[in-house]
Amino acid sequence: MAKRVLRVLAGEAVWPPPVWLMRQAGRYLPEYRALRAEAGDFLKLCLNPGMAAEITLQPLRRFGMDAAILFSDLPIVSYGLGQALRYAEGAGPVLPPIRTAADLDALSISGVADKVAPVWETVRRVAADIGDATLIGFSGAPFTVACYMVEGHGSREFVAARGMAYTDPALFARLIDLIVDANLVYLRGQADAGAEVLMLFDSWAGMLPPDEFRTWVIEPTARIAAALQQSHPHVPLIGFPRLAGTMLGEYARGAGMQGVAIDTAMKPEAAADMVPPQIALQGNLDPLALVAGGAPMRRATTKILDALRGRPHIFNLGHGIVPQTAPEHVGALVEQIRAA
Amino acid sequence: MAKRVLRVLAGEAVWPPPVWLMRQAGRYLPEYRALRAEAGDFLKLCLNPGMAAEITLQPLRRFGMDAAILFSDLPIVSYGLGQALRYAEGAGPVLPPIRTAADLDALSISGVADKVAPVWETVRRVAADIGDATLIGFSGAPFTVACYMVEGHGSREFVAARGMAYTDPALFARLIDLIVDANLVYLRGQADAGAEVLMLFDSWAGMLPPDEFRTWVIEPTARIAAALQQSHPHVPLIGFPRLAGTMLGEYARGAGMQGVAIDTAMKPEAAADMVPPQIALQGNLDPLALVAGGAPMRRATTKILDALRGRPHIFNLGHGIVPQTAPEHVGALVEQIRAA
Repeated sequence: MAKRVLRVLAGEAVWPPPVWLMRQAGRYLPEYRALRAEAGDFLKLCLNPGMAAEITLQPLRRFGMDAAILFSDLPIVSYGLGQALRYAEGAGPVLPPIRTAADLDALSISGVADKVAPVWETVRRVAADIGDATLIGFSGAPFTVACYMVEGHGSREFVAARGMAYTDPALFARLIDLIVDANLVYLRGQADAGAEVLMLFDSWAGMLPPDEFRTWVIEPTARIAAALQQSHPHVPLIGFPRLAGTMLGEYARGAGMQGVAIDTAMKPEAAADMVPPQIALQGNLDPLALVAGGAPMRRATTKILDALRGRPHIFNLGHGIVPQTAPEHVGALVEQIRAA
Repeated sequence: MAKRVLRVLAGEAVWPPPVWLMRQAGRYLPEYRALRAEAGDFLKLCLNPGMAAEITLQPLRRFGMDAAILFSDLPIVSYGLGQALRYAEGAGPVLPPIRTAADLDALSISGVADKVAPVWETVRRVAADIGDATLIGFSGAPFTVACYMVEGHGSREFVAARGMAYTDPALFARLIDLIVDANLVYLRGQADAGAEVLMLFDSWAGMLPPDEFRTWVIEPTARIAAALQQSHPHVPLIGFPRLAGTMLGEYARGAGMQGVAIDTAMKPEAAADMVPPQIALQGNLDPLALVAGGAPMRRATTKILDALRGRPHIFNLGHGIVPQTAPEHVGALVEQIRAA
């Protein structure tokens, strides 16, 4: 019998729903912090197959989730293209910004495979140990990766990146095309190494007006989906267009995903109305309810379970786990869902 | 004949729509930067009626918008309650965080009127010079103000504030009630001083799941609306629950606003479906389209004008002007709308 996450992504309303949590591998776990201190540098950690595989599996050992998500980060694909990447302490990724055609010309698809090979090795090691759980690989979706590549760092507005999309759409489109190609290399390699599901995180999709959302979020995502459907028809895809709001329906119909992750603000009933019924919904507990634990967490969890009962649903958060989360709360959440 | 903004807020579909822009008074204008440099400190600028009135009127002189929005900032109401407030260069408001009942007990409604009196004087001065334009006063909505008061600064997640809402809802509710009361003093004073419209900015509403959104966004906003309706029935209200997404309809039906501002990501047609037809919509051009100017700006503007034609609409951005905006683009935008 197929694994529970895969059954849901094939359109089955499995009950109780399978569960995993965005950023379940990471900063709130003491066993993670120990490895992080040993590695020193975050990028080194992502590119160390032994450590990254261990981190990917840590939450499964503790909590027995239905899926493990590869421990890595969104801009690894930019690093694959030859853009220098480092992590400033407490400030996220920092890259030399891409602002001109010449900057873009300096990047190359030819080095991707060599650069991301350690991540593929991580996937192979996790796949060997995953057991009954499902191994989810991922990358940043083209728009969100382009935001980091052009801006050079995280930002509230991404003025340089979004400005380029308006003032030089041809250049921005070239960058998006390059990220699509790099993601195909990167994601196909993850699937070949044993990833059973692939997820595309479009964390900054919610800044875009409808037309821009169609051009820079739905269209390139659909191209990735179509190409992966050709090469890896048995690997389902989950897309996360964070804060898509009223654009969620168009995304679900147009982006070619088998599952759509919904953010904290999304009303589950509204998502269920907008998204075709054969497409799985993944989400959307508030990470702060998980920090709180106890009765508030139980109530919020029950609401989501009830709202999505009867349709394909993978229980998850609506945003990544925050470092302030007590590990016991994660355990209690998984227990509650199992007992639903 | 009533002013155009007031006609729209009374439910009339005025064509072409009146126009003003969030943060139209501020950092992108050289005449603002000159005053800012003279004042030195941002809070001093907000509390200097001569300078704040001048800044409020600067964009009207240049561009002839239909409305001026008071130059001030969201956490002034916290300052009114006795919480120390300062502005760190480039980092926004910084306040000593409210984390306990004792912290909350140290605040008091009794000092609000004295502390915010300079803002009321600003409103009086602008009202004397406003001419045919409409003067819009504002404050931060209770949830967003509470986020700053508990966290002590801006944040992506507001873990402390949103955590308190889950783990000690009684304490968080006491804080919200206090902000409601302080806002009533502050906003009534603005109306008495000559503000013709009042706006409530709920910038962080989009982080909340549906139940939390109802409790901390819609309910306290509705209380403010009901009380202002009693004391100032002729002053219409505009609410901005940023990134409300699929919760916009409940907000529009429940919060008691005569106008609802919509963010950049909101599909105008979806907003028109969710919001009752007599309630005005305000928005929602992407501030980055305004930075780009030219054909991309014109196209995006035409789309919004067309989508909301036939219903009460105040043209605006979907988020505040960014400092990188060329003033000529603002002029071109106002011209395009006037000629529509």
